[in-house]
Amino acid sequence: MKPLSEEALIRWIEALGWPKNPFLTCGIGDDCAVCAPGAGRDLVVTTDLLVEGRHFLLETTPVRDLGWKVGASNLSDIAAMGAEPAAFFLSAALPAGYQSLFLDLMTGLHDILGRFGTPLAGGDLSSSDRLFLSATVLGEVPAGQALRRADARPGDAIFLTGQPGWSGAGLRLLTSGWRKTADGHLTDPDGRPQPASGLAWDCLEKHLRPVPRLETGRFLRESGAVTAAIDTSDGIAKDLRMIAAASGAGARLDAAALDALTHGGTVTLADVLGGGEDYELLFTVDPSREAAFLAAYPGEAGGLPPLYRIGVICTEHPGELRLSTPDGEQQLPFTGWDHFSQ
Amino acid sequence: MKPLSEEALIRWIEALGWPKNPFLTCGIGDDCAVCAPGAGRDLVVTTDLLVEGRHFLLETTPVRDLGWKVGASNLSDIAAMGAEPAAFFLSAALPAGYQSLFLDLMTGLHDILGRFGTPLAGGDLSSSDRLFLSATVLGEVPAGQALRRADARPGDAIFLTGQPGWSGAGLRLLTSGWRKTADGHLTDPDGRPQPASGLAWDCLEKHLRPVPRLETGRFLRESGAVTAAIDTSDGIAKDLRMIAAASGAGARLDAAALDALTHGGTVTLADVLGGGEDYELLFTVDPSREAAFLAAYPGEAGGLPPLYRIGVICTEHPGELRLSTPDGEQQLPFTGWDHFSQ
Repeated sequence: MKPLSEEALIRWIEALGWPKNPFLTCGIGDDCAVCAPGAGRDLVVTTDLLVEGRHFLLETTPVRDLGWKVGASNLSDIAAMGAEPAAFFLSAALPAGYQSLFLDLMTGLHDILGRFGTPLAGGDLSSSDRLFLSATVLGEVPAGQALRRADARPGDAIFLTGQPGWSGAGLRLLTSGWRKTADGHLTDPDGRPQPASGLAWDCLEKHLRPVPRLETGRFLRESGAVTAAIDTSDGIAKDLRMIAAASGAGARLDAAALDALTHGGTVTLADVLGGGEDYELLFTVDPSREAAFLAAYPGEAGGLPPLYRIGVICTEHPGELRLSTPDGEQQLPFTGWDHFSQ
Repeated sequence: MKPLSEEALIRWIEALGWPKNPFLTCGIGDDCAVCAPGAGRDLVVTTDLLVEGRHFLLETTPVRDLGWKVGASNLSDIAAMGAEPAAFFLSAALPAGYQSLFLDLMTGLHDILGRFGTPLAGGDLSSSDRLFLSATVLGEVPAGQALRRADARPGDAIFLTGQPGWSGAGLRLLTSGWRKTADGHLTDPDGRPQPASGLAWDCLEKHLRPVPRLETGRFLRESGAVTAAIDTSDGIAKDLRMIAAASGAGARLDAAALDALTHGGTVTLADVLGGGEDYELLFTVDPSREAAFLAAYPGEAGGLPPLYRIGVICTEHPGELRLSTPDGEQQLPFTGWDHFSQ
């Protein structure tokens, strides 16, 4: 393909046809996008960087899935605040020869923004010798109701949604040679086709094409029972430690409850605690409202993921996680992902 | 310096002490920043990528100035909308060994955000093998009053602020071996110290440490006389062509007026039309309000830059720029910067 000019590339992206909403009054094509925030609404803003070779490998990631995941990881931060996504910005630095790949990537982003009705509002393009992506999302939430990290209180129950650890297990499959092809087939480490279903497939899909928990986040906010929330992008251990540290409290995890998350060895405890990129919601619930919250939660019948109660916020060991076992308590060994120590 | 962890790096950045405002109600440290937009205000949003080796060279750019310029180039987009900056987000991918450099860069960003009272609201950090920066700025403007590109009308006068072309001339000085040292001295291509004043210094400062025209943008919006505006980041020719194309009109530039911008050869016409990175404002004025606008403009005595009237919007040749000379009219040769063709 002959390289497109910057203008032609932008026209191609616009021609995909992106969702519209009343929030975004002027999108791509001016010095700034212009938005009209709703009265009585707070704005939430998140931004994420994705670097080839650090956050993803093109050898193991179908590029349309990569576009989906750029969307999913950022929408997941909006979900963790209990907010609604309102406008998405994507900037990209592209090596020579990456334009066609980038168009596939934008198609994957279009898939997920279409699913959640979120407009593409702008961005920036540059040449580069390495693929870099930077996304920013704006969301709206009724004023004063955003779910924060810092408001967990001792005695609150700790819950986790969905399939924590499955993404880490999926990454292990990729590392050991399993592949999802660009046309959506599965191959094993010997290159033999495998059915696109079953556990290996589910773990790969969870890693490559996670679904942000936006409906769940909305339910958590509207319930009035949730005191703090975070999305699980760096492994449960690090993410829960952030809630504990921000709230000036400790957390006690129940070993048996964590063990149930491994589904009999399908995923490991290391996947759950340190795998990362799950994009599940980790949240705390006021104990006086826990029963009503659980009674109202629609669960899988209502299209929301299963919930796991994994522990309790406590006053001891502020900022630390402890594991309760039948033999006593120990400090949790997993520290989670740090970009500058790995 | 021993590498800091991601958390320690964030703590160091927070400890610089950033401006606060009522817009940003929750900054660094949650899944999202939380903002409270003012009633009756629109939000404007801009995002920019800066890639080492494409947008800047560390050999020629003092890194504290680079931090300033990341701020300036984004605040300039806010100025072009006639808006007030409200929250700044910076993401960075850092090669190993760049942490100390990054702290200097953040000090430069702190300089400019301090000057314009803009809080640092968040961002993202990653390791990388190439320095990559991505900034996003939110601004506020009275609802419906943002200065757009698309609203210029035939007959409107075209104006330009300040020192167009000086940044391009400064870049030529850097390319030919002039340097600004980290401690603010000037050296010529033979490495001899030169006084930090005069024309060479002014051009270098304009290139390395441009001042976004926020006060001017506010005046333009409040005047009610300005129909369209853009900031000049890609060279006047490309920037004006964008106003013309968005407005479905052409533009006729006056050769004598452009010639006056060269200040007798200090900068070249190529610097003015194609140099880029000036971060001046290019705008159009309703002819029926031009006299009153100019009478009210406070100019340098009031702390605002000089204005140059360089031409007029016309109906002929939509999307094109024509140059009027005593010998007739010609098409303008300069096309401006395209990331994928240079």
